[in-house]
Amino acid sequence: MYVIGERINGMFTDVKKAIRGTDAQVIKDLAKNQVAAGATALDVNVGPAVRDDEGAMLWLVEQIREVTDVPVVLDTAKWDVMRAVVPKVKGDMILNSTKADPEIAMQYVQLAVEHGAGLIGLTIDADGVPGNIDKRVELGAQLITVSMDGGLELNKLFIDPIILPVNVAPKNPGHCMEAITQISAFADPPPYLLLGLSNVSQRCNNRELINRTYLAMAMAKGLTAAIMDPFDKELMDTAITSDLLMEKMIYCDSYLEAARQ
Amino acid sequence: MYVIGERINGMFTDVKKAIRGTDAQVIKDLAKNQVAAGATALDVNVGPAVRDDEGAMLWLVEQIREVTDVPVVLDTAKWDVMRAVVPKVKGDMILNSTKADPEIAMQYVQLAVEHGAGLIGLTIDADGVPGNIDKRVELGAQLITVSMDGGLELNKLFIDPIILPVNVAPKNPGHCMEAITQISAFADPPPYLLLGLSNVSQRCNNRELINRTYLAMAMAKGLTAAIMDPFDKELMDTAITSDLLMEKMIYCDSYLEAARQ
Repeated sequence: MYVIGERINGMFTDVKKAIRGTDAQVIKDLAKNQVAAGATALDVNVGPAVRDDEGAMLWLVEQIREVTDVPVVLDTAKWDVMRAVVPKVKGDMILNSTKADPEIAMQYVQLAVEHGAGLIGLTIDADGVPGNIDKRVELGAQLITVSMDGGLELNKLFIDPIILPVNVAPKNPGHCMEAITQISAFADPPPYLLLGLSNVSQRCNNRELINRTYLAMAMAKGLTAAIMDPFDKELMDTAITSDLLMEKMIYCDSYLEAARQ
Repeated sequence: MYVIGERINGMFTDVKKAIRGTDAQVIKDLAKNQVAAGATALDVNVGPAVRDDEGAMLWLVEQIREVTDVPVVLDTAKWDVMRAVVPKVKGDMILNSTKADPEIAMQYVQLAVEHGAGLIGLTIDADGVPGNIDKRVELGAQLITVSMDGGLELNKLFIDPIILPVNVAPKNPGHCMEAITQISAFADPPPYLLLGLSNVSQRCNNRELINRTYLAMAMAKGLTAAIMDPFDKELMDTAITSDLLMEKMIYCDSYLEAARQ
């Protein structure tokens, strides 16, 4: 499981405060501790309350780079910010994210290829988030095609079918699971299939239960990456155990500890 | 989710003692409490240590019937015992289980039809438990065919692809999940797809974690019934939440409590 730690995001109060007060230690600790908890990469999002997106993003990346070399996942919806930040980032990175419209996606693919980066593509286009499975699958295929045309290797592409909260979009979790299976079938080996996991339980009770249950279900259907909270120990245990049950690792009595090392 | 409570089984010490001492209250409590915890039906297995299988099975069913009308799942590998017990059982019942060999399966189908019972069919034949997906699917199809030929409605048929422990058969959990999906596609609506869940974690550490993770994964792949422990609250929460995420119920803040009522 490719675990992208979600915690360095200005939506969280501690991160927002750290950005405003340029308190580097908070960010360094979040980076170090997420990696120690099992994160493969770290999402970096300045959040909605910060004006200088570019400067704040680069400052965050700088703090992270002082403590770890794992890929940073540059999380901004603004093309201008992405274009400005990417050339200045050192080490491995993933662009988060492009929509699936071919002209838009090709810009991102080219930027990613130019800098040896990975890319997250959303199954969303000018018409918005698809209300059914077929459109998600169509946009997933479109993202694969544009990536191949643009020279991005599929092991650097992450396709996100966009999960909506189960309390407002009850069909959505099922649609995403099915789309994950179908998109995975387009290439062998397929690109990563990814979800922003915690969105499934926004404003729900039993958030952690819903998150970890959905993670296991989606992994059974082909999910191979998630933006999620590595500090949620039961969630990480579920990810590791799902890998075990799909024979991505072999059982030993200490398989949970072994996977974390 | 069709939850078959596993606790009335002579393999458990309390049940073995209750059978030997004809302590009815133990069995009545186990029956009542499993139903209260969310069991849809109750497995009844005298266990390996009892000589008079028929008498013990009927005594167990009698105690259960004094406290609940849910289906009893008559769990014996012995045809003679099954044939003797079934005509004497009052109320709804499910025969557990037949192998998939057509001649054997037809006997069980006819017995089930004659008494309005359900039937659990295992994807196992004279060659033993299949080592791959295809053979499981073939035997699943065979069970469906025999049931239709014998007049057993598919909503009374439960197909069990036989889960083996992940520590000795690492490919098996994946095989069973895939077989569940493929067998489900043979009929619309399909028969129930069932697992004896706790077998996946026999002699493993973290048994409850493995059980509930595998339950969510298998439900995503089409599992609709399980013989399992309704007293494992987190396992039941996982079953209910998986149903929620497949839109078998609609979210409300108290969905866990609502599902238990």
